[in-house]
Amino acid sequence: MSYNTFGHLFRVTTWGESHGPALGATVDGCPPGIPVDEAFIQVFLDRRRPGQSKMTTQRQEADRVKILSGVFEGRTTGTPIQLMIENTDQRSKDYGEIARQFRPGHADITYHQKYGIRDYRGGGRSSARETAARVAAGGVAQAVLRALAPGLRITGYMVTMGVKQIDRLRFDREEILRNPFFIPDAAVVDEWSDYLEAIRKNRNSVGATIEVVAEGCPPGLGAPIYAKMDSDLAAAMMSINAVKGVEIGEGMAAARLTGTDNADEMRMGGNGQVVYESNHAGGILGGITTGEPIVVRFAVKPTSSILTPRDSVDVEGHDVEVVTKGRHDPCVGIRAVPVAEAMMACVILDHLLLDRGQTGGVRGRIG
Amino acid sequence: MSYNTFGHLFRVTTWGESHGPALGATVDGCPPGIPVDEAFIQVFLDRRRPGQSKMTTQRQEADRVKILSGVFEGRTTGTPIQLMIENTDQRSKDYGEIARQFRPGHADITYHQKYGIRDYRGGGRSSARETAARVAAGGVAQAVLRALAPGLRITGYMVTMGVKQIDRLRFDREEILRNPFFIPDAAVVDEWSDYLEAIRKNRNSVGATIEVVAEGCPPGLGAPIYAKMDSDLAAAMMSINAVKGVEIGEGMAAARLTGTDNADEMRMGGNGQVVYESNHAGGILGGITTGEPIVVRFAVKPTSSILTPRDSVDVEGHDVEVVTKGRHDPCVGIRAVPVAEAMMACVILDHLLLDRGQTGGVRGRIG
Amino acid sequence: MSYNTFGHLFRVTTWGESHGPALGATVDGCPPGIPVDEAFIQVFLDRRRPGQSKMTTQRQEADRVKILSGVFEGRTTGTPIQLMIENTDQRSKDYGEIARQFRPGHADITYHQKYGIRDYRGGGRSSARETAARVAAGGVAQAVLRALAPGLRITGYMVTMGVKQIDRLRFDREEILRNPFFIPDAAVVDEWSDYLEAIRKNRNSVGATIEVVAEGCPPGLGAPIYAKMDSDLAAAMMSINAVKGVEIGEGMAAARLTGTDNADEMRMGGNGQVVYESNHAGGILGGITTGEPIVVRFAVKPTSSILTPRDSVDVEGHDVEVVTKGRHDPCVGIRAVPVAEAMMACVILDHLLLDRGQTGGVRGRIG
Amino acid sequence: MSYNTFGHLFRVTTWGESHGPALGATVDGCPPGIPVDEAFIQVFLDRRRPGQSKMTTQRQEADRVKILSGVFEGRTTGTPIQLMIENTDQRSKDYGEIARQFRPGHADITYHQKYGIRDYRGGGRSSARETAARVAAGGVAQAVLRALAPGLRITGYMVTMGVKQIDRLRFDREEILRNPFFIPDAAVVDEWSDYLEAIRKNRNSVGATIEVVAEGCPPGLGAPIYAKMDSDLAAAMMSINAVKGVEIGEGMAAARLTGTDNADEMRMGGNGQVVYESNHAGGILGGITTGEPIVVRFAVKPTSSILTPRDSVDVEGHDVEVVTKGRHDPCVGIRAVPVAEAMMACVILDHLLLDRGQTGGVRGRIG
Repeated sequence: MSYNTFGHLFRVTTWGESHGPALGATVDGCPPGIPVDEAFIQVFLDRRRPGQSKMTTQRQEADRVKILSGVFEGRTTGTPIQLMIENTDQRSKDYGEIARQFRPGHADITYHQKYGIRDYRGGGRSSARETAARVAAGGVAQAVLRALAPGLRITGYMVTMGVKQIDRLRFDREEILRNPFFIPDAAVVDEWSDYLEAIRKNRNSVGATIEVVAEGCPPGLGAPIYAKMDSDLAAAMMSINAVKGVEIGEGMAAARLTGTDNADEMRMGGNGQVVYESNHAGGILGGITTGEPIVVRFAVKPTSSILTPRDSVDVEGHDVEVVTKGRHDPCVGIRAVPVAEAMMACVILDHLLLDRGQTGGVRGRIG
Repeated sequence: MSYNTFGHLFRVTTWGESHGPALGATVDGCPPGIPVDEAFIQVFLDRRRPGQSKMTTQRQEADRVKILSGVFEGRTTGTPIQLMIENTDQRSKDYGEIARQFRPGHADITYHQKYGIRDYRGGGRSSARETAARVAAGGVAQAVLRALAPGLRITGYMVTMGVKQIDRLRFDREEILRNPFFIPDAAVVDEWSDYLEAIRKNRNSVGATIEVVAEGCPPGLGAPIYAKMDSDLAAAMMSINAVKGVEIGEGMAAARLTGTDNADEMRMGGNGQVVYESNHAGGILGGITTGEPIVVRFAVKPTSSILTPRDSVDVEGHDVEVVTKGRHDPCVGIRAVPVAEAMMACVILDHLLLDRGQTGGVRGRIG
Repeated sequence: MSYNTFGHLFRVTTWGESHGPALGATVDGCPPGIPVDEAFIQVFLDRRRPGQSKMTTQRQEADRVKILSGVFEGRTTGTPIQLMIENTDQRSKDYGEIARQFRPGHADITYHQKYGIRDYRGGGRSSARETAARVAAGGVAQAVLRALAPGLRITGYMVTMGVKQIDRLRFDREEILRNPFFIPDAAVVDEWSDYLEAIRKNRNSVGATIEVVAEGCPPGLGAPIYAKMDSDLAAAMMSINAVKGVEIGEGMAAARLTGTDNADEMRMGGNGQVVYESNHAGGILGGITTGEPIVVRFAVKPTSSILTPRDSVDVEGHDVEVVTKGRHDPCVGIRAVPVAEAMMACVILDHLLLDRGQTGGVRGRIG
Repeated sequence: MSYNTFGHLFRVTTWGESHGPALGATVDGCPPGIPVDEAFIQVFLDRRRPGQSKMTTQRQEADRVKILSGVFEGRTTGTPIQLMIENTDQRSKDYGEIARQFRPGHADITYHQKYGIRDYRGGGRSSARETAARVAAGGVAQAVLRALAPGLRITGYMVTMGVKQIDRLRFDREEILRNPFFIPDAAVVDEWSDYLEAIRKNRNSVGATIEVVAEGCPPGLGAPIYAKMDSDLAAAMMSINAVKGVEIGEGMAAARLTGTDNADEMRMGGNGQVVYESNHAGGILGGITTGEPIVVRFAVKPTSSILTPRDSVDVEGHDVEVVTKGRHDPCVGIRAVPVAEAMMACVILDHLLLDRGQTGGVRGRIG
């Protein structure tokens, strides 16, 4: 990973600011001959699109992706795929205060300190809007995975929002896309809605926990020691705006376990496959996939742009009181779900190519 | 990061297996003219060295570092620094079972599946012994940071071990190096000792949580979007053996907070500096350091090599019962403390160089 | 360098096909606060633009660059700069033959063999049109160099075309931009024009040699062993379409020299500076700049798309006779001049940032 | 490529100084399961070893390679392979003058200017001795290529030395290893010997041209645009000490050709393969291999360390007269032959892995 690029062989570079003319992603190293078009990618973008409910920012963006290169007659050519999303909802407004003031908890001040200049319009480069580009790139990754790892399925969902949590016993995958929270538990949707609406009316925001699971990932992907699958996933998730913690499998809870509890015991299955009796490891051992579901969880902090006044300073060194105006998600964690799925798709595909490069994709036999 | 290398400009490549002739680290991109010698680095290695108490493996390794290149007349030359540690405690023994069986929770099986071959002696490349090389490289990073960021101080310590935890109200930095757990709370040392001894006698192991704090880090380090300071720290910590979760600042707990609680409000200090009234962010906003302490926490799972029998399979595809023999840490988290300090030193230095490259190290003014 | 990206810290990724909707360059790692706008970059693009004389392809492209990101209020922000050039001259035509046939000396066949698919319209990704994106990125590099290395001046020109060559005794820098060949020798312009016109009328093409010189480059730039300034320059020039050889200083002729002839002897200048009595080295020793002019020379093969029939094969495995139709440069070397200047600007700036990262830009003293 | 590392997936990092305790190469990303041992690698090192004839430096170095990691029971494990060569001939001597003076044409002065410190003993890091590490790494690459590209054969040889050249009509591959010049023309060995002996007695040195050819390389290797096979080969060769020019196929001579002459016409062969009627391209079109022999040529300047006095300056800023003492190759080009073969082996293997990663190694069909 470097500056605005991630990936070893499937390399994604994102560019663009929240209120500039456009933003996008350059996808380099894509395998050739893969069917993909704008409509396929648009499905993923539509899931992340703001303005779809009261739960997310009311900014209206069509988020229409255009493929400018790298796809010919409906198939990838192996050359860079440029995915551009034009910004359409650039309301002209007075940026007077936000141009000078730093919002607490926001990257305003650190961009200013580092670069001495920042595009303050809508957060500029540090805006969560950048994640639209990741989702577009993730759409390409999903198209490739469909061809190279047909059994793979990546599913993201929220597991907590503020003090609320799902009941895993009611886990229902079909429910995820039916509610505005991407939660797999129909029974709590109304409760979460009321809770978030109260937060919003209170001019506040709240954090969330998201889980992403990849089922059907082949074993043997990942590359010790510093390109471990879990290391790359941690970096990928932590690079998403507002993420403050990342867990694999048991995650932080592993610290409380004993070795006997944590061991994922194994038995040979009837079909000559290894059967794991548990998955504390979250599908990764020594940085390499076991073939069990890859389980990643991460925490998103509450939106830092809130309508409640907070103490801060401005660029001239004055103490000020900041009140964010305008359209903001009361819980940015919600829209992080499709972003996390996109990041996982990119990371897994990247490791699939990396593994194919080094080992030819051949697996050591058991039995 | 790639395979066995991490870092953008301060690049560390580690090599070597647990029971091969030697292991080490190649440090490339080191600034020239920095005073460093074997004795300086050895201090860090001695903290990580096994066999120092009942709390860690009884394997006896001197872990003597030799500088083979890149240092001339006591100063770095800007060329690659080769740090070699010879393995001295290579007991010859029968590896019969361990060569064929896969320990649950261990990388044995994934290395086998990926590569079709593995150096099974002592875990080979996946052994925690690899971290000695990181600590040596971290020693070089510390020497450079002493010159380039003189106010910086990196401190690691355990905060939980299994069900035990420190009382932060009794935090005593001086205590950390006085007890075998690297804990900053003298009052619980005996309790932790008894607890771990019981675990050990019970042929079991236990997880732990480690916290590493960097005080005095300059603001402006870190590089959006995919080389964020927190993203790189997450990758670095997750690459340490047995780590299953990484947190920055509030970490996973941020998911429960509201925006008003989580905001780190600011005021101008008397000296023209920005004063943060809290540090929920853990010293990083938008991937860039604020100047506040960088706070990283991570969970280490219990050692997977335990003396209690577990169900598993072998390379021929038989169901077996695995019992690890020999010398193993009942809590690998303990020795992860100096490793985590080393990783943090390397990552911060790397970003200091990266920032100096792009911006010249000049900071945007406030006031 | 990787796939479609070059540079260590000043990283340029180009994308786009000859006849797609657009092409461009993503410039990442640019220092912040540098004044630059579309007009500044356009000047460089206009020099490379086709259709300006009979000497180059008659394809009419405005080659208008748009800055889509990374520049705010006329200055770089340190975030990725997206430079897009829309393709306007996409004549609809029948690609029947060129879609199936492979032109000798062209990348048609290798793209087909590698990827199994290729955008055959105008050469697709392998078209020299890709170099427009490099020139745009080079414009950004020139803007940065103006700020960070104000004494630096990069000058490219042709030295031979087919059997013609300039007389270095008549070298006149001002002449370079006055003639369509970028040659510094006014006396041969007519002769070269007649020669190339004859080549063109003969349905043929011809090769050329280009030289690029960077005067005023600071000493100390370059990074042994595998990121040597000359190594990076060689890669950069060789990556330009149709280049078959690259020389530094004496170049291939160094093979004939003796050590006494080749030594660039030194004396202390009156001002405490080292004065070199010759520059066989072309400004680079051990991969690091000396402060003398950096001299790079490279050969461009004749355009492979010619109007004279050649034996070839098609995708179905038939022997065919290929005759390229349409608009092609009789000497692609001409337009390689601004491309080479752009590449040199990018490489030198990249090394300036890299050096600043590692050493802080401090130089070892002499005297 | 970065600092002391080259390669995308097959990554070689070299380390060590001429007169330090040891030097070596870390080979990362090697495919697993490949048979290789010290004896196999030693064969390549022995060809490069100094002190074998009057034609090369009389320094006596056994250049014994030790494999410290990454090989288990005679096969590669996919983890980093550490190849160490201990320096045995470290004569203690007075470095007084060479420590202060800068040899014309040598990296002494640029290392001093860049780093402010240099290991002056034997040239330190800039010594041609670093190339021993490349040859060791090349040995590993050759072992892998033997398995993955069994028909591939890489052959290097000198084609000119000063004013002497071989007669290609007498090309005899078997002769190359029989004479101390690695020349394929038995008829000129004595003449070259006398010529070089006269140069040496005259306290002088001389340049050379080396050609390396890879026959049997599969088509489709190489990755546009900035990781072209020719671009990577150019960088690799230019990184070898004293190299000043690199050519592919026709090289610099391509500048004089016309398009009709330069076209490598094609016909379908009886076996369904494409047959090229010439190979002006040197086996590479658009940065991708054609399947024809890859032909690379490069020029090595005369050794800059000569026994004839030259004007120079010292670190205190005095004008001095430098006379190099001791053991130096009168033509460093000779020992560049095995080095160039090693570099080519590494680059080709790297691209083979890269291609396998992106495309799966599947080729587009013709016919």
